[in-house]
Amino acid sequence: MTGKLIGVGTGPGDPELLTLKAVRAIERADVIAYFAKQGNSSNARGIVASLITTQIEEQLGYPVTTEIDRRHDDYKSATSAFYTEAAERVAAHLDAGRTVAVLSEGDPLFYGSYMHIHVRLSQRYPTEVVPGITAMSGCWSQAGLPLVQGDDILSVLPGTLDEIELRDRLNGSDGAVIMKVGRNLPKIRRAIEAAGKLDSAVYVERGTMANGHSMRLADKTDDVAPYFAIVLVPGWSTRP
Amino acid sequence: MTGKLIGVGTGPGDPELLTLKAVRAIERADVIAYFAKQGNSSNARGIVASLITTQIEEQLGYPVTTEIDRRHDDYKSATSAFYTEAAERVAAHLDAGRTVAVLSEGDPLFYGSYMHIHVRLSQRYPTEVVPGITAMSGCWSQAGLPLVQGDDILSVLPGTLDEIELRDRLNGSDGAVIMKVGRNLPKIRRAIEAAGKLDSAVYVERGTMANGHSMRLADKTDDVAPYFAIVLVPGWSTRP
Ligand SMILES: C[S@@+](CC[C@H](N)C(=O)[O-])C[C@H]1O[C@@H](n2cnc3c(N)ncnc32)[C@H](O)[C@@H]1O
Ligand SMILES: C[S@@+](CC[C@H](N)C(=O)[O-])C[C@H]1O[C@@H](n2cnc3c(N)ncnc32)[C@H](O)[C@@H]1O
Repeated sequence: MTGKLIGVGTGPGDPELLTLKAVRAIERADVIAYFAKQGNSSNARGIVASLITTQIEEQLGYPVTTEIDRRHDDYKSATSAFYTEAAERVAAHLDAGRTVAVLSEGDPLFYGSYMHIHVRLSQRYPTEVVPGITAMSGCWSQAGLPLVQGDDILSVLPGTLDEIELRDRLNGSDGAVIMKVGRNLPKIRRAIEAAGKLDSAVYVERGTMANGHSMRLADKTDDVAPYFAIVLVPGWSTRP
Repeated sequence: MTGKLIGVGTGPGDPELLTLKAVRAIERADVIAYFAKQGNSSNARGIVASLITTQIEEQLGYPVTTEIDRRHDDYKSATSAFYTEAAERVAAHLDAGRTVAVLSEGDPLFYGSYMHIHVRLSQRYPTEVVPGITAMSGCWSQAGLPLVQGDDILSVLPGTLDEIELRDRLNGSDGAVIMKVGRNLPKIRRAIEAAGKLDSAVYVERGTMANGHSMRLADKTDDVAPYFAIVLVPGWSTRP
């Protein structure tokens, strides 16, 4: 009998935003696995810390890859080899009959690193995915900002897109969410301004975490943003 | 002392997908309010039924508006008047010092009817929004379908868009979610086929609910779909 693989969404930061199902999956798992940058603690593990008691912990530490260009084939093959090795470490627990909960910040199948484990193992082992509150839901709730309604179109855009494409995508949709802000903020700001949407855009940093906050992007006077930041552009102009 | 308004996301159907925060908000509320079509039970209330004990219930029944054309001004003003009246019923409880939890299926600020209460009352009363698992997260988790990764763009599209626009939007994004399927399914299917994405599209009906299920859209032989149905088109073609 092999164990079960469970991808568990931890939500964006506030431990109260775990679902009942996620709490149960974590409490009952034999092994809790999570990705972390070398020398860093895992944000997802931090969110569920109070639920970890006697479970085995399996930290999947990212290799240091900053010396290699991300677009280079060497980067891709190094990353691929890392995920394959991480999946095999999870598989060894499953082969031994242990249930493994792989933590994922936010929702597992929405830009989450759990996906790399999922595509490698879900055909081989019984697998379940427990959805999580996404970062964007946590952020627009904290900001109290209605995002899309009725026949609105929402675009979720990575802040890594170039400025012209960002502007065009913003022009072509009602609501928009821009992820991966960090050092892309100056470019994101210019694209939003060019699309004429700076007045309504909202910046959210570390949404739902202890020190999280939000403000109008137009009121943010510096261009410093951490990894855990998002920009929201509300749709829903025609309110009945 | 006025009461507090709380928009509470109930998730897409499985009561286990409520967050800890939502459970607490519902248990502690003085009043539980929810929208429902006349003569119908509320889906959101059904999800949280086991948590309702002595709280006051306030059902906000939609008026019957099927005789009026949706694009007509009369429809808009009738709908607007209804939401204003519903907000005033909630406000009366808040004025009496009662905390009111307004239930919303999925996430409150993502195509949720709670938004109509929020825009009318959040400037007047202390307000909090508790995010919920969205229908799309519930559906791609149930289907075990990784949706977007890395620099992918995700488009959330209402199935009410016309066929050509749907096709163009599908062509112009990596992942896509099509909401409001119902009787739009034949058109949605044609648009996905025209965009060359029928092979990867997945249809999910009543995701995470007791009788929910998913299948490849190409394998669905009829064009019958209920209100609670979604079509998912995965992005993430370049997998390291
Ligand atoms: C790799 S993606 C992970 C997304 C996650 N799986 C989800 O469901 O939202 C990381 C990006 O999510 C956003 N993010 C994650 N948590 C956040 C938070 N608490 N506040 C603001 N943004 C956050 C940031 O834009 C960050 O660059
Ligand atoms: C008015 S929107 C509400 C969206 C909700 N607030 C959310 O966060 O996802 C209603 C649409 O959501 C989708 N939906 C809601 N619940 C669903 C479920 N359990 N399974 C499939 N689709 C669902 C359907 O496409 C439906 O037409």
